[in-house]
Amino acid sequence: MSFAAQILTLYPDMFPGHLGHSLAGRALEAGDWSLDCINIRDFATDKHKSVDDTPAGGGAGMVLRADIVAAAVDHALLKQPNAPILAMTPRGRPITQARIRQLAQGSGVTILCGRFEGFDERIFEARPIEEVSLADIVLSGGETAAFAILDACIRLLPGVMGGTDSEVEESFEHGLLEYPHYTRPQKWEGRMVPEILRSGDHAKIAAWRQSQSEQDTRSRRPDLWERYRNAPVLSPSDVQKKKKKDGP
Amino acid sequence: MSFAAQILTLYPDMFPGHLGHSLAGRALEAGDWSLDCINIRDFATDKHKSVDDTPAGGGAGMVLRADIVAAAVDHALLKQPNAPILAMTPRGRPITQARIRQLAQGSGVTILCGRFEGFDERIFEARPIEEVSLADIVLSGGETAAFAILDACIRLLPGVMGGTDSEVEESFEHGLLEYPHYTRPQKWEGRMVPEILRSGDHAKIAAWRQSQSEQDTRSRRPDLWERYRNAPVLSPSDVQKKKKKDGP
Repeated sequence: MSFAAQILTLYPDMFPGHLGHSLAGRALEAGDWSLDCINIRDFATDKHKSVDDTPAGGGAGMVLRADIVAAAVDHALLKQPNAPILAMTPRGRPITQARIRQLAQGSGVTILCGRFEGFDERIFEARPIEEVSLADIVLSGGETAAFAILDACIRLLPGVMGGTDSEVEESFEHGLLEYPHYTRPQKWEGRMVPEILRSGDHAKIAAWRQSQSEQDTRSRRPDLWERYRNAPVLSPSDVQKKKKKDGP
Repeated sequence: MSFAAQILTLYPDMFPGHLGHSLAGRALEAGDWSLDCINIRDFATDKHKSVDDTPAGGGAGMVLRADIVAAAVDHALLKQPNAPILAMTPRGRPITQARIRQLAQGSGVTILCGRFEGFDERIFEARPIEEVSLADIVLSGGETAAFAILDACIRLLPGVMGGTDSEVEESFEHGLLEYPHYTRPQKWEGRMVPEILRSGDHAKIAAWRQSQSEQDTRSRRPDLWERYRNAPVLSPSDVQKKKKKDGP
C-alpha cells in the first residue's frame, strides 16, 4: 500500500518541487508514495476568495482564518481519516527522527502549511492537529518545512532505499551523531584515512566508530548527549541480542 | 546588490524547485537574489564520472570523495570568495535564526549538499566549511535542507517582505516563541477571540502577548526558555529605548 501524503497549502503549484527528482521522484513514479495537494483557498466563502484577515488586537501581517482552515482540514480528514495532521509552525514541538519513523510506518500524513503570521489559534483547539516545528528558524511558509518532513518519511518507505541498511546507521537513529566517514584516496593533501579503518579488524573498527560517535555528540551536541546518557536508545543489533537473551 | 546563492549538488535540476514560486520566486525574478548551481559531478576525474566510493573500514552506503568535493568547493570559492560555505549534515551545528540573519546581511552563501553516507571527513579539515544541521531528522540529501536555509535568508532580504515589520516579531527573533494569533470571525464554533484583544487597549494587549510568549515558551520549549532566562535577547524597541537612555 502506498504512503499517502496530503498537503493543505495556498501554493499547490510548489509541489512536488524537488521531491519530483532523484530518490523521492522515482519512488513517486513507482507508486511508493502519492501526493495530493488541497488548496486552502478552495474553501473560502466570499467572492474575493479570502483566507486571511488582520490580527485581532492589531499588529503586522495577516492571520489564516480558523473557519476556512477548518473546512480544508475537514475535507482532508474525510479523504484520509487515519492520517495524522501536522501543522508546520515555529510554535510547534520540534520534529524528531523517532516521530518521522512512526509517520513512515503509518498509512500517510496530512500536512497543513501556514503563510503570513500563521493560524488563528482556535483551529488547534477545535481539530486534532499536531503542531510541529522543523527548526528554530523562520521560513516564508510551512511548505519548505513540509518538504523536509516528506523527504525524511519517503526515504524510510519499504523499497525506496533499495534494501541497504544505511537507514538504521544514521545520525539520531540511536540518539547519537553518526561517526565520521572516510573513503579513497587513502592519502589526500597529506591527510591519511585513520589507520584503524585500514586494519581490517571489524571489532576494533566498530569500537572506534562508537567511541567517535560518542565523542562528537558530547562535544558538538551536549543536548543530545545528555538525553542519550539518561536513556540510551538501543541499536538494532542490541535489540536482537536482548530478544535472544530475554527469550520469546 | 543581489544576494548570491551557490549550490554544490549532484542534482542541480532540483533547483530552484518550490523557491521558484510565491515570495522567493518573485524575488528571484526581481533580482533580489540569484542562484547558481554547481554540479559536483563536473569535477569527477575518471570516465565514469564517479564522485563517491565505499566507506573505509566497511559498512553500507557510499561516501563522497574529499578530492572531488574539494575541487568543486575551490571552484565555488573562486566565484564567490566572500560567501561563507555551509555543508548541510546531521553532524553539524544546529542552524539558528541569528545565523540566518547574519547570512542574509552578507553578499551570499554557498551551500554544499551531501548525498549517500555523507562526506569524507577530511574535507572539513582542509577547507573553510561550516557544518550545519537543519533538524534532528535524516534527509535523503542536503538539498532539502539547503532549500530551508535559502528560504529563511531570502525572506529577510531588503524589499522581499514588502516593508512590513512582521519579520522582527516572529518566533525565535527575541529568543521566545511568538504569541498566539486570532482573527475574525470573533465567534467561531462557540470559541471567542480572547476579550483583551478586543479591548483596544494597546498597552494591555502588548503585555498579554509578552506573557503568552513567555508562558508558551516555558511550557513548549523549556530549552529555549532556559537560554532566554540566562541571556534575554533585546527586542528592536528595547534596543531603541536603550540607545535613547544611554545617549549617543
